[in-house]
Amino acid sequence: MEYQAWVADQAGGAFSKQTLDREPLGAEEVEIAVEHCGVCHSDLSMWKNDWGMSGFPAVLGHEAVGRVTAVGDHAKGVSVGQRVGVGWNCQSCMHCRPCLSGEQHLCNDVQPTIAGHFGGFASSLRAHWAWAIPLPDDLNAADAGPLLCGGITVFNPLHMFASPISRVGVIGIGGLGHLAVKFASSYGCDVTAFTSRESKFAEARQFGAQHVVATRDKDAIAALEKSFDLLIVTVNVQLDWDGLIASLAPQGRMHLVGAVLEPVPISIFPLLSRQGSVSASPTGSPVDIANMLDFAARHDIAPQTEHFPMSQINDAFAHVEEGKARYRVVLDADF
Amino acid sequence: MEYQAWVADQAGGAFSKQTLDREPLGAEEVEIAVEHCGVCHSDLSMWKNDWGMSGFPAVLGHEAVGRVTAVGDHAKGVSVGQRVGVGWNCQSCMHCRPCLSGEQHLCNDVQPTIAGHFGGFASSLRAHWAWAIPLPDDLNAADAGPLLCGGITVFNPLHMFASPISRVGVIGIGGLGHLAVKFASSYGCDVTAFTSRESKFAEARQFGAQHVVATRDKDAIAALEKSFDLLIVTVNVQLDWDGLIASLAPQGRMHLVGAVLEPVPISIFPLLSRQGSVSASPTGSPVDIANMLDFAARHDIAPQTEHFPMSQINDAFAHVEEGKARYRVVLDADF
Repeated sequence: MEYQAWVADQAGGAFSKQTLDREPLGAEEVEIAVEHCGVCHSDLSMWKNDWGMSGFPAVLGHEAVGRVTAVGDHAKGVSVGQRVGVGWNCQSCMHCRPCLSGEQHLCNDVQPTIAGHFGGFASSLRAHWAWAIPLPDDLNAADAGPLLCGGITVFNPLHMFASPISRVGVIGIGGLGHLAVKFASSYGCDVTAFTSRESKFAEARQFGAQHVVATRDKDAIAALEKSFDLLIVTVNVQLDWDGLIASLAPQGRMHLVGAVLEPVPISIFPLLSRQGSVSASPTGSPVDIANMLDFAARHDIAPQTEHFPMSQINDAFAHVEEGKARYRVVLDADF
Repeated sequence: MEYQAWVADQAGGAFSKQTLDREPLGAEEVEIAVEHCGVCHSDLSMWKNDWGMSGFPAVLGHEAVGRVTAVGDHAKGVSVGQRVGVGWNCQSCMHCRPCLSGEQHLCNDVQPTIAGHFGGFASSLRAHWAWAIPLPDDLNAADAGPLLCGGITVFNPLHMFASPISRVGVIGIGGLGHLAVKFASSYGCDVTAFTSRESKFAEARQFGAQHVVATRDKDAIAALEKSFDLLIVTVNVQLDWDGLIASLAPQGRMHLVGAVLEPVPISIFPLLSRQGSVSASPTGSPVDIANMLDFAARHDIAPQTEHFPMSQINDAFAHVEEGKARYRVVLDADF
């Protein structure tokens, strides 16, 4: 069962094209011929082993789009030839309470696509059938990859915690944040974008933000006291948390989707006085992802992408690492 | 309009009985002849000006029970002779969005009973009619005081975030915690009490806890990984927050009701991986309080109290300050 993949042999090492071998397809697995695969910031974190959970050699890539080429004997719901996407997770136990409740992404044994498993920077990848999410026909497949991790990561808090009457703030206008602004705007919310770069102000408005605030402008944030029903924090650095919590409306929520490494200090008194919440979440379930893709197709929401041939993966990673991606990089398979 | 009150003339100063005067009753106010008034730990915090929001002279007491003796011209819903209770708040604007939404405790101009207002350690106190909550006839009025602040403070998170199938942990078995255990048990939840004092283990079970854990037993807490749907933290000291967040089930919530003064450091990765929340809340609305009182009456839930004549207020405060209250002190008016 030979296939080709772009392999990093060590943390931070260059990717080289290698021919790999693997076991016969599992009974519940499907195999997908990769057409496109997004480069997510967490691919970089895993590549550099920032989280201490990487294994090498590694095949990264967890925003994969392609066509099903084989299905296992007990696979359900997908068929050969169908176009599907695979995101951060590619498998779960399917029998624990979270799985049976439709919260498969919270399964204790959920399998990340690029940790202990080989991902989408390859000619093909495998996933449990439930995690190979069929793409709506009217979604642009070439740009759909970043929706499968970045997109669902910011769509899920909106779906869980916002409604069209919500005032939503999005902190950080990057790969995740620009999608958050697009989704929140199409959701019907009043959207404020927070960005540290003035060069992004106009673009944030084009994505759908009605208001733009400089993340480091303490006075502007202070003027927004008790404004937001939901703040979605897409960056993973320490911020002026007290200022942000003060900007929450009664019963407001600050929700983090970036893996901030150092503990976030939360002042309880202001949180308590407004009956507020601080929360965090990882991607979403297969149904969450399917709903997000449907929503994106209906509202014509796509990530703003830059495409590289997959054979230029090393250049693409450098581009993302240098913070130059506007806003999401997709690799097109060219094996 | 003379009345008598126990007055602290300075932060931490002894209470002395004084005759005070006040303005004619406001159009929306009611006046209540105090029969009983609980001593809450926040009375001590305000007395010592721990939060920097106290004014002196001060009349404390915000768990007051008594009979309405006068109603203003525009007061609604309560009548002279009716037995009512007044808790942490005694007034709100009634026209802002939180007030009109039934979240009057989150009003921007909510008036605390003992900050900028004189409270219940007096022959009478005043409140806006909406904040004078009628007591159910079958509730023991002498012991109802502590429900009006301590009770609603722990009942509200249960009501908002738990159901009878929830696994609930209560951290700290004191004035608030023992009520939290009683409420959660009657709510039908699976209840675990966390206490730092082994002497309280048996009592916590009597209050309704099915399980008891030593708060400082890291191994016991580690064994509870991914267990709790809701943790109610009733203490206001720094805890092993990482251990507690690890004990949250998928989509679990750690909810603080104590005003922890120093910021609480929250590790985002474990919160994110279980899609968890950290939140906090202050008491509740008038309807929340009325529902809580109804529930307490139906389930025969009362605080465990020690009574002092109000004239022994200085002894009572010393008793609470020394941590000797088991579990809640009530002063009986003896003017």
